[in-house]
Amino acid sequence: MGRWEPNARGRLAQAAFELFGERGFDQTTAAEIAARAGLTERTFFRHFADKREVLFWGSSDLQQLLVDAVVSAPESAAPIDAIAAALAAAAAMFQDRREGSRQRQAIIAANADLQERELIKLAMLAAALAGALRRRGTGEPTASLAAEAGIAIFKVGFERWVSPAGDQDLALIFRDSLGQLKAVTAGS
Amino acid sequence: MGRWEPNARGRLAQAAFELFGERGFDQTTAAEIAARAGLTERTFFRHFADKREVLFWGSSDLQQLLVDAVVSAPESAAPIDAIAAALAAAAAMFQDRREGSRQRQAIIAANADLQERELIKLAMLAAALAGALRRRGTGEPTASLAAEAGIAIFKVGFERWVSPAGDQDLALIFRDSLGQLKAVTAGS
Repeated sequence: MGRWEPNARGRLAQAAFELFGERGFDQTTAAEIAARAGLTERTFFRHFADKREVLFWGSSDLQQLLVDAVVSAPESAAPIDAIAAALAAAAAMFQDRREGSRQRQAIIAANADLQERELIKLAMLAAALAGALRRRGTGEPTASLAAEAGIAIFKVGFERWVSPAGDQDLALIFRDSLGQLKAVTAGS
Repeated sequence: MGRWEPNARGRLAQAAFELFGERGFDQTTAAEIAARAGLTERTFFRHFADKREVLFWGSSDLQQLLVDAVVSAPESAAPIDAIAAALAAAAAMFQDRREGSRQRQAIIAANADLQERELIKLAMLAAALAGALRRRGTGEPTASLAAEAGIAIFKVGFERWVSPAGDQDLALIFRDSLGQLKAVTAGS
């Protein structure tokens, strides 16, 4: 088997999702994932530090995408509009991945350690968003509150999107959730 | 030493905070905490499942307090007003504990595992608040968004309250933060 494997990362990720879904996360080894993908364990570890990373390696791309969207929003944009731009960018990134996102969510929902890791991911995204807003000149606590509001919308909206009944577009769900949050905080 | 020790829990908690602050959380054992408090290790384990629980045993009281405040808010209160009532109840509970809360925050900030545990606590509080709102008849996603907004205010406000520069009243900080969140989501 050559060193270069076409789309090894994607094949490993797909095999991992299948096995996590069939056997559970704890009952699956990196060697089994590699075997299912028709690759060696060594190839697995060239792409992922461990099996958990298969579920979280996209986090840093997502964080970069959110931060870039906030930083490049028009100077005149209010903090919440910069956050809305970040949510729109995230929605565009996820829009063709509903089935994969559903599988991932089901795997995470079945495992307490993975749920903790997911919470840490969300907290890190909130901190990154707050930092991006501060770079635009937004003061505290406005930057942190706007960032936490954005992540609340992301969390609640994403769960709605991957739910079995979810058939709406993610971008629409985020816009709708922001509208609901506005209505909630206005007390109406 | 008799089985009954006056205020054993409080003495153990104080000793634990001192040792965690002096040596770090990982470098402190339950036996050392008990010794510092002038109690036996057995007494320690009658009060706490492990040393980490010294930092988190209050979470269930806090959760109960928040839920009770939401459930007992006037029927006519909007979801965000029920959340505001919960925050006011939390502020009253914490108001005389700023020094202890500062110590606790410093211990948690110094340890990644404790930070994770704190995030889990906040996520559980958000879920409990959303559940309490649903019991009042608030639908989804409004209940979850209002609950997440409340926990965002709690998190950001609490950090401000325990910061070295923090000298404002916690109740005031929560009210102020809610006002800021309203302004943020309104885009002003």
